[in-house]
Amino acid sequence: MPAPPVAVVGLGQLGGSLAAALVAGGRQVAGWDVDPAARAAAAARGVSITRELGGVVVLAVPLPAMAGALEGLTVDPDATITDLGSVKAPVLGALGATYGGRFVGGHPMCGTERSGHGATDPALFAGARWALCLEPGTELPRWLRVAEVALAVGAEVVPVTAAEHDDAVAAVSHVSHLLAAALAAAAGEAGPTALALAAGSFRDGTRVAGSDPAFVTAMVEGNAGPTAAALDRVRAQLGRPWPELVAAGHAVATRPVARETVRVPVDRAALLALGRQGGAVTRRLAAFVEGWVPARG
Amino acid sequence: MPAPPVAVVGLGQLGGSLAAALVAGGRQVAGWDVDPAARAAAAARGVSITRELGGVVVLAVPLPAMAGALEGLTVDPDATITDLGSVKAPVLGALGATYGGRFVGGHPMCGTERSGHGATDPALFAGARWALCLEPGTELPRWLRVAEVALAVGAEVVPVTAAEHDDAVAAVSHVSHLLAAALAAAAGEAGPTALALAAGSFRDGTRVAGSDPAFVTAMVEGNAGPTAAALDRVRAQLGRPWPELVAAGHAVATRPVARETVRVPVDRAALLALGRQGGAVTRRLAAFVEGWVPARG
Repeated sequence: MPAPPVAVVGLGQLGGSLAAALVAGGRQVAGWDVDPAARAAAAARGVSITRELGGVVVLAVPLPAMAGALEGLTVDPDATITDLGSVKAPVLGALGATYGGRFVGGHPMCGTERSGHGATDPALFAGARWALCLEPGTELPRWLRVAEVALAVGAEVVPVTAAEHDDAVAAVSHVSHLLAAALAAAAGEAGPTALALAAGSFRDGTRVAGSDPAFVTAMVEGNAGPTAAALDRVRAQLGRPWPELVAAGHAVATRPVARETVRVPVDRAALLALGRQGGAVTRRLAAFVEGWVPARG
Repeated sequence: MPAPPVAVVGLGQLGGSLAAALVAGGRQVAGWDVDPAARAAAAARGVSITRELGGVVVLAVPLPAMAGALEGLTVDPDATITDLGSVKAPVLGALGATYGGRFVGGHPMCGTERSGHGATDPALFAGARWALCLEPGTELPRWLRVAEVALAVGAEVVPVTAAEHDDAVAAVSHVSHLLAAALAAAAGEAGPTALALAAGSFRDGTRVAGSDPAFVTAMVEGNAGPTAAALDRVRAQLGRPWPELVAAGHAVATRPVARETVRVPVDRAALLALGRQGGAVTRRLAAFVEGWVPARG
């Protein structure tokens, strides 16, 4: 099966990087952005700028713009629609209603605190995990087509449901942003001497607090339920005796990262089971995918 | 005034790095460590291994070992004693009682999650802030002697009281370690998919959770009061509406870092005022020190 064409809507950091990575791999990539400067930058990297989109159509726009991202554009009625948004249940609600089983929600776990087409990096996805949603209604061949795009730019694909994804990223990403903000804001209250003595642990702990606040607010509010639940788990941890808390955090932070290579049939339940073990797909074969799961100690 | 000799007790990451940096600058450095391997590593870098210590005696041992660090060693009765411990009021209580105005508490804000003499790096202090305690009883000429050692290895000296230091580092360092542990432990509870999707914000937010748990526990328990107060401030921040919290954190994390160069008389009150503005000493002149304060917007 030849690789389907890819069309990227939104050519900022994520979309621009994806388009650039695919072009670098010799693929035909179409693209569109409402910003003429982003269109020009993508065109200079070999992206065909067009309003007529087909194949795998990737929505790489901010969450508030997601539902309206295709307005004014012409989309092939057989196109597979995917997105790169940081929450999945709300996007599934909006786009799944329109596109049904043709919509496959996705979320590559990369990007930096920079944004915009000036932050484009074709290597952005290399080695990153890319969550890809497999709902009961998702058409499996379309899921595989989107997975193939993610694999083509060097990512590893984690099969999840939208709800599993949103709980997971609340725990590892959205709450990280709130903790970074709280650490920075509380240090600001503590005064100038505290900020003058800030060193490595503060810089690391507050790095993502430098991200665009409108983007972060949209992200956490767009995943409010799971984020509130994850924040409650963090609060409960902060109530533990400190030696216990420190030991528990150390155990997770230093867990072994050995992997076991596995082959999984191309089957909804088997793929989701792989994701639930903390594993990921690394390669598509014929009736199987190859991937890995964390090695059992 | 010729630079006084320096003797370093404890030749692990911090002490070994300090000794190596001073040797690299052409200074005579004596040193001792209870571990023969650490002594041998320091000797190979040009440190004179001896139990007879004078000049500026730097205690670079873990907090629980601080009070007994000089047992079995001979210390010149005119020596100035300083330390590199991460809390200052308890160390002042223990060593100030023995050494009075000859004791000058210190804390260089550097070091990594690595430890031991294998992690020695003579560049460790370059550009780091080094808190140096100026209590009502501290002899000012001794404070200047220790400050000169810190400046000699490229650090910037922040004049503080022990209490001010402990409040400040609780806010920027000790609470950072507890938040990192809580974030990691809560993600561990969330399960394998969450850990599989962990990316940049989680890695940054949990980096210090990889530090030796015994070291971290001693650090936070050794500064329990200020750390509990700083943690309460973080908890209060976490209770704010998210858009407010994110905006407040962003404002602190992206505050301008412009500096105004200042000259401050060598005077207890003037030096402490410099530290309270978030400033630091960068150079010793005759009756003045040169330093900087954050530029007013």
